[in-house]
Amino acid sequence: MNEQILVNIAKHISLSGEESAHFISLLKLVRVPKKSILLKEGQLSRYIYFVDSGTLRAYYTDKENKESTIMFAITDWWITDMYCFINEIPAMLTIEAVENSSVFQLSKKDLDLLYTTTPKFEKFFRILMQNAYIREQLRMIENLSLSAEERYHHFLSKYPQVAKQVTQKQIASYLGITPEFLSAIRARR
Amino acid sequence: MNEQILVNIAKHISLSGEESAHFISLLKLVRVPKKSILLKEGQLSRYIYFVDSGTLRAYYTDKENKESTIMFAITDWWITDMYCFINEIPAMLTIEAVENSSVFQLSKKDLDLLYTTTPKFEKFFRILMQNAYIREQLRMIENLSLSAEERYHHFLSKYPQVAKQVTQKQIASYLGITPEFLSAIRARR
Repeated sequence: MNEQILVNIAKHISLSGEESAHFISLLKLVRVPKKSILLKEGQLSRYIYFVDSGTLRAYYTDKENKESTIMFAITDWWITDMYCFINEIPAMLTIEAVENSSVFQLSKKDLDLLYTTTPKFEKFFRILMQNAYIREQLRMIENLSLSAEERYHHFLSKYPQVAKQVTQKQIASYLGITPEFLSAIRARR
Repeated sequence: MNEQILVNIAKHISLSGEESAHFISLLKLVRVPKKSILLKEGQLSRYIYFVDSGTLRAYYTDKENKESTIMFAITDWWITDMYCFINEIPAMLTIEAVENSSVFQLSKKDLDLLYTTTPKFEKFFRILMQNAYIREQLRMIENLSLSAEERYHHFLSKYPQVAKQVTQKQIASYLGITPEFLSAIRARR
């Protein structure tokens, strides 16, 4: 049952049997039924989550109650409200399950200890953070330079698995356009 | 003359005298006169840069020749086209000096070796990447949820030093609005 997360870790670092066992001992499996909330805005953001199965969505709710999707995460991805997790402050984002999901949670406290006991995790999370930064930078380039229609088609080709699981409204809120505008784009095809 | 970059490194890790000397030996100081180009779109992106003095700007040029500012970097910041640097491919971005600047460049090859010889740099760059990811995620939240006017005022309060060095047109292209719209916002104050 822990295989998926160990395969994920093994993409970037090799753990001994003992190191794997120690890492696994820090995790807690949490089931998140469809539409339920894993982390709520305002709650202390204490965990980083690895998606063992399912699909989750992190969104920001502004003062007019408009939801903006900040990220999706499918099986084998990591997700959290990174700013609030690193600073151990109340979350700005809400993370909900788009379908029945299960995640492994790792606390900030245990992650900080892990960096000390098993420094090779510095490398693992360096690469994870690097990839996350690159993803956001490419998204920013697209947002500033492509039309909504181009961004939508690019989203479908880059994240076909995500597109299958989430609603058109959620995709629109990820792209920063209204659901009506996304319908108009789709009608044009 | 190497003091600034060593102070920057010391924010997150402690180096011995020998480790510092080795790290410094990998760097090359490059002067970048105002308005000159440090990295041009299409050129192989081989270096990450630490700004020793001055201000730089990374921008993307789309097919209509519109420039979008992806990031600014002032003294004590790191900058590169991260996606292309990590993958050692031709740059998508152009990096230019906004004023007379000097940077230390570190090659991908030397950085990869550094991770092996001095693994504590994994921690340094893990934190650097984490902060960069967080910065981009907060920017994405703002772009999706705040008005252009709110984003402009937030930019001024978050990056007062950058705002002093760059043009209004460059700030507009960072915020994803036209220079005319930024003028209208400023006139409202």
